[in-house]
Amino acid sequence: MQAGSPSGISQALAQFIAACRWEDIPDSIRHEARRSLVNYFAVALAGAQDPTLDIAVAAYGRFAAGRQAGLVGRPERFDMLNAAALNAMAANVYDFDDTHHPTIIHPTAPVAPALFALAQAQPMSGAELLLSFVLGVEAECRLGNAVSPGHYARGWHITSTCGVFGAAMAAGKHLALSPQALVWALGSAASQAGGLVETLGTMAKSVGVGNAARNGLLAALLAQQGFDGPAAPLEGPRGFLRVAAEQPDLAAVTRGLGQHWQLADTTYKPYPCGVVLNPVIDACLALAADPRLLRAGLAGIERVTLTGHPLLRQRTDRPGVATGRESQVSAQHAVAVALARGRAGLAEFSDAAVRDPALRELGAKVAVCEAEGYSVDAAQVRIILRDGTQLAHRVDAARGSAARPLSDAELEQKLRELGNAARPDWNAAPLIDALWRLDEAPDAARVMALAA
Amino acid sequence: MQAGSPSGISQALAQFIAACRWEDIPDSIRHEARRSLVNYFAVALAGAQDPTLDIAVAAYGRFAAGRQAGLVGRPERFDMLNAAALNAMAANVYDFDDTHHPTIIHPTAPVAPALFALAQAQPMSGAELLLSFVLGVEAECRLGNAVSPGHYARGWHITSTCGVFGAAMAAGKHLALSPQALVWALGSAASQAGGLVETLGTMAKSVGVGNAARNGLLAALLAQQGFDGPAAPLEGPRGFLRVAAEQPDLAAVTRGLGQHWQLADTTYKPYPCGVVLNPVIDACLALAADPRLLRAGLAGIERVTLTGHPLLRQRTDRPGVATGRESQVSAQHAVAVALARGRAGLAEFSDAAVRDPALRELGAKVAVCEAEGYSVDAAQVRIILRDGTQLAHRVDAARGSAARPLSDAELEQKLRELGNAARPDWNAAPLIDALWRLDEAPDAARVMALAA
Repeated sequence: MQAGSPSGISQALAQFIAACRWEDIPDSIRHEARRSLVNYFAVALAGAQDPTLDIAVAAYGRFAAGRQAGLVGRPERFDMLNAAALNAMAANVYDFDDTHHPTIIHPTAPVAPALFALAQAQPMSGAELLLSFVLGVEAECRLGNAVSPGHYARGWHITSTCGVFGAAMAAGKHLALSPQALVWALGSAASQAGGLVETLGTMAKSVGVGNAARNGLLAALLAQQGFDGPAAPLEGPRGFLRVAAEQPDLAAVTRGLGQHWQLADTTYKPYPCGVVLNPVIDACLALAADPRLLRAGLAGIERVTLTGHPLLRQRTDRPGVATGRESQVSAQHAVAVALARGRAGLAEFSDAAVRDPALRELGAKVAVCEAEGYSVDAAQVRIILRDGTQLAHRVDAARGSAARPLSDAELEQKLRELGNAARPDWNAAPLIDALWRLDEAPDAARVMALAA
Repeated sequence: MQAGSPSGISQALAQFIAACRWEDIPDSIRHEARRSLVNYFAVALAGAQDPTLDIAVAAYGRFAAGRQAGLVGRPERFDMLNAAALNAMAANVYDFDDTHHPTIIHPTAPVAPALFALAQAQPMSGAELLLSFVLGVEAECRLGNAVSPGHYARGWHITSTCGVFGAAMAAGKHLALSPQALVWALGSAASQAGGLVETLGTMAKSVGVGNAARNGLLAALLAQQGFDGPAAPLEGPRGFLRVAAEQPDLAAVTRGLGQHWQLADTTYKPYPCGVVLNPVIDACLALAADPRLLRAGLAGIERVTLTGHPLLRQRTDRPGVATGRESQVSAQHAVAVALARGRAGLAEFSDAAVRDPALRELGAKVAVCEAEGYSVDAAQVRIILRDGTQLAHRVDAARGSAARPLSDAELEQKLRELGNAARPDWNAAPLIDALWRLDEAPDAARVMALAA
């Protein structure tokens, strides 16, 4: 078949994955893979402390079939399916993980946990893990491209629905599945693709994300045993792409395969909240240091007006939120906390922060407007003081956006901060060092021991 | 809220399930529940012998976290989540299980395995199991009604997508979850709803059906531990009903709740193939005994023409099939085997039967036409012999249709035949007796011991 042709997409993707070698991965993408893993351990170390994980670890604990695989940031050990699920939950629970911009998929959460779990049961080198990781993300995000933007807009939680394919292809690559077996794994992944946007902001979201990692790994293990599936699980008349989207761009799955890598379209968040809030927080942190505001104090603020991309208003114009989770998608809360505390870390988006009456009062003064000429990475914040003074700050490329990505040092700092928030005496240096040198490691699983 | 109102559907369903008592279930529905279970054990005993189960049992065996729960028709024992998955696979692998007519859901496969697995870990009486079963089927099929016919037509495997809710509500009922916790369980079920029609006829289908039972049970166990979810997982703007269907009939979830029971719309299959083929097989079995055909022999057949509902042609006009699985949805194969062998059991829809050259030759003579005036339960078969003789037989209500349901004795016979096909020396009588008397049993799980 021709690359880019809508027929034989499942086959073509499987053949590419089966044939691709570490030497085929450009240096820049290898480095982006390492950066994704630094970010993964950062967010999973933090997420592992959330009550969502406490309940899930207890509930899944009854069904642990072994202790081969560890958890990031927790002492419990599980069989590899359960470990994959729980680590995926931890990585994504705060939506503080990486973002594939064209689709808003969080690509690493379903893929890396499946691979590290497999690596603990079935040894692989660091380079092998990184290769499988790159290919898993590639499959996941390319399916996302094909069903975007309609799929997510309709209400499918795209990290979960596409993530299961990413985990399946990553695990299938490490298991050295044939192209036929990879197509079978895509079929069993298709059978398990699910997850709803309605569950965002609740624990139920995390079951879907956990399943994506677990069930993708299961799909690969089943295919390894000869568990078959349809010939065209992706592009068939009732295959994933056509069922999941009104007008899927089928050719997007294979267009430029091996030339343009999806990891190049991935960024990392500086703040634990909806990515559209990043420029707002940048602007507020800048304004928080303005001497005129410092003089007037928070009580001197009459009104705050945000202007940005339509998604800013649609997704985050949310006053009066009740939980830390909800506050992560509240422009009112983000503005209040950034102005009042000059910080926007996990502590600022907690249940405790939401209960602070000063923040609620300040949030009530925030209005959100949409305007032409703003990308999702841009926003303007205008503060009107009681004395009529106007302060304004416009950000065109937020920290963490593609135009202004977090540096390697900033990612290290994120890992250090989140790890130390979980456990103040923890030394992040060995893990950071091991991740940057992962492609030289003979045994990828050893990284997990540094993160338990 | 008003019953039938589209707002508060998740709440209303949960409240109904939490409040419903065994005394509220009419005798006819109690009996239909027992009939569903007789049919369940019949099809699961057969399905347990399929290669799909051999592979799945081996693959899942690595992840067995205990041996509390047994499998139907197999000696292996598992933890309850894995047992629920594997028994659901077995019950549905041949699509020989029950059918909820308005939706084509196979209602029992996801629900009964979840309950029997739970019953082995956490004892319940037979009446408790039956009550939870009735309510699980009720939830599952009512959601199916709300998203039909668009959901299945689009390509969602409705037994899997709605089954996870049925398993969650059945298990949640036995766990005596509060209405709030039942809504949480609906949320975690919504997060896990998936399954694609594209996978039908392959092993990959069974992962989805297995997940429905497993993940529904998991959703209930999580909710029991306080794992929360959205307030309106079903009817919310990005909840299951609106995401899964273009124009969901939201009110169908609660309309007539407690008055019209979904088990009243369930039937059982006499033949292991697509339900639209039932009248065709009935007609062919009648014609197979016609002295004129017996005289002419199969070689004397010039042509066979089927006339029926449009779905007959759309779903089953499928000559030259390659596997037993595919033959279950092939009108050509069904006609050939019924005429040539005068039988239409599991052996007639096997890989071996498909390889029989005499059947392939006969199948090649079969044409399928659609016409006005035929329900899905009706069909005409017309045979033209080489000498010009025409034989015709029309069936208006197929065996196993709502108008001509299988009798209790026929269901018993189905259980006996399928059980003995799996193991010729097995005595079905104790299991049959235990199922008909299940509501008197102090310990529902004991039934499982009779079916291992």
